[in-house]
Amino acid sequence: MVNYFSSDFKLAILGGGQLGKMMLYETRKYDIQTLVLDPSEEAPCKISCNYFEQGDLMDYETVLNFGRKADVVTFEIEGVNIDALKKLEAEGKKTYPSASTLEKIQNKAVQKNFYKEKDIPTASFEVFNSIENLKNAVIEGKTEIPFVWKSATGGYDGKGVSVIKKIEDLDKLSEGECIAEKLIPFKNELAVIVARNPSGEMKTYPVVEMEFHPTANQVEYVICPARIDKEISDKARKLAEKVSEAFQHVGLLAVEMFQTEDDQILINEVAPRPHNSGHYSIEAAYTNQFEQHIRAILDLPLGNTESKVGGIMVNLVGDQDHEGEVVYENIEKIMKMDGVTPHIYGKKITRPFRKMGHVTIVDKDLKKAREVAEKVKNSIKVISKK
Amino acid sequence: MVNYFSSDFKLAILGGGQLGKMMLYETRKYDIQTLVLDPSEEAPCKISCNYFEQGDLMDYETVLNFGRKADVVTFEIEGVNIDALKKLEAEGKKTYPSASTLEKIQNKAVQKNFYKEKDIPTASFEVFNSIENLKNAVIEGKTEIPFVWKSATGGYDGKGVSVIKKIEDLDKLSEGECIAEKLIPFKNELAVIVARNPSGEMKTYPVVEMEFHPTANQVEYVICPARIDKEISDKARKLAEKVSEAFQHVGLLAVEMFQTEDDQILINEVAPRPHNSGHYSIEAAYTNQFEQHIRAILDLPLGNTESKVGGIMVNLVGDQDHEGEVVYENIEKIMKMDGVTPHIYGKKITRPFRKMGHVTIVDKDLKKAREVAEKVKNSIKVISKK
Repeated sequence: MVNYFSSDFKLAILGGGQLGKMMLYETRKYDIQTLVLDPSEEAPCKISCNYFEQGDLMDYETVLNFGRKADVVTFEIEGVNIDALKKLEAEGKKTYPSASTLEKIQNKAVQKNFYKEKDIPTASFEVFNSIENLKNAVIEGKTEIPFVWKSATGGYDGKGVSVIKKIEDLDKLSEGECIAEKLIPFKNELAVIVARNPSGEMKTYPVVEMEFHPTANQVEYVICPARIDKEISDKARKLAEKVSEAFQHVGLLAVEMFQTEDDQILINEVAPRPHNSGHYSIEAAYTNQFEQHIRAILDLPLGNTESKVGGIMVNLVGDQDHEGEVVYENIEKIMKMDGVTPHIYGKKITRPFRKMGHVTIVDKDLKKAREVAEKVKNSIKVISKK
Repeated sequence: MVNYFSSDFKLAILGGGQLGKMMLYETRKYDIQTLVLDPSEEAPCKISCNYFEQGDLMDYETVLNFGRKADVVTFEIEGVNIDALKKLEAEGKKTYPSASTLEKIQNKAVQKNFYKEKDIPTASFEVFNSIENLKNAVIEGKTEIPFVWKSATGGYDGKGVSVIKKIEDLDKLSEGECIAEKLIPFKNELAVIVARNPSGEMKTYPVVEMEFHPTANQVEYVICPARIDKEISDKARKLAEKVSEAFQHVGLLAVEMFQTEDDQILINEVAPRPHNSGHYSIEAAYTNQFEQHIRAILDLPLGNTESKVGGIMVNLVGDQDHEGEVVYENIEKIMKMDGVTPHIYGKKITRPFRKMGHVTIVDKDLKKAREVAEKVKNSIKVISKK
């Protein structure tokens, strides 16, 4: 067993955003040396790592040379140079999650085909290599409207996804490879985080539920545990394990799913890293997702994934009418409420809908947490200085 | 209200040890800018703060100039230059806890006299300005053996404290001002952490209990909540509040107490900062002690001090037969146990009895946590490389 703690061992993290920042709380707790690469001089990870390098995550040489400095390489963002990861793996560097997993996930068409191949339930879909081909298929009646268009690459936080209801909607789409996915009415959007280490030990977190705003079609609350039947929850956790095993994944895999009207579970997509849907775990779980990711990629025993208390997460996104130096209006007000913990990511500038932080609300009684969460949501505002 | 979050506001922390390091997890979470002063280039706080300065905490000019760079000054160790703190306060700098509180606490004779003056129950005592005077009092029969000798200043982690059972024991004591305290047989050693902010809001944490090794007279486990009657627990919390108010304290105050055979609560001593007896709170409490200290000194609302689950803390101290580069033997073994979280402070060199880290064990059932804690204690060893 490698000695990771207060030793010369070095972990490289590609990406220095908020996910990396929260990962660093755990490497500090274990006194594991870290190196972080990020394009921004103002990355939230800039302090707390042992070594910070400013550089392009998509640049082959930059990623390769950076990765060579460490004993194990991981990432907190999918947009990294895969050829460099492959080269590092070929050189014998432990790279978790693996380049091949990331490659499958980076491209949604490849990801969806992978599910089909592995007999993993997912909404039916077709792949097109251009918008023109998609348009022709619609005109020829081969692809039926309505459907969900997804760009094969580059989608993030709702970008690169659009519900196509009429043929004119196709004109607003960005060019490139894409998929047309069957529009499935669903009861619930769920997620399960799976942790798996190189020895094959695997643990799933409880199912979480995304609660949407009644009219705005925006996730308002991530709720753990999901308010669903145990049967559905067991099914979702089992399916998430199947996905992690199919990828022979190492590290965390956040598996997003739909619970259909007839209680089928369909895989939507996955993220091979700590995930927004697992932030609640910092306060609520016995082992939070960031610590778990570190445990998994270092082949340490996985921690208990169950919860101490009910947890609800509210994202802190920039108000749509504000841009500039950030102010967290009413943060003192929410700090007065029991079981409320704000997390501020450390971005100096707010922009409309920019992810600036999140708030966790915990309580032994999930209903009570849900009430407090609504108060939090209605109190705090991410605005700019006057 | 000052805007602390992702702003230009700066908090200075005197001392860069493990308490400061754990405090920095919270300043990072809130994105509050920090400056740390510590004599060691290898201080655990060196990374994670925004600015680190190597310097002498007892040097007037160093502390003064360092404090001037920040908006609020706090400390994580009592051994700091008080005149510099006083000067900073005179210049209008917010210094929490205050210089006058620290001054009372730094000297045990002054501290004990303060309790007497404020009608706070404590073991009866006499003050001597030299060992010679103490010896004369014993010879003249004015001071009765057995008693507890305590050095007025410089005591830490059991140093500067000795039980005097025969007159020859006096010859081993170090010179200087001291107190002779009545030896009180006690049932339990308890502690309560009180948080108080400048607005006067005050909250106490549940009472914790120190469980001693049956023969070695060494604290083995800090247990929260203490396994005592509610009546005693209420009394202890109320008394701790009285102490905090007497000091007009701002920040955390860890109040160590004895529960006597006849269920009196006597104050032993206090520490004006996060404390070993509150480490359990990181995993067990709704608001951990480090976050609470930050909330208190910044006059933010205090968080919920109650626990989500039962918590037990085991110190990781250097094995008595080892000195050199540290290795945490069997750490993987304890990480396999549910609800177990090791904290590694980041000291490269272990020495006999050096505090190198701690382990928290949590469980909804405190009895179960206690069983696991014993397994932890019997598994992990802090040794040096062969």
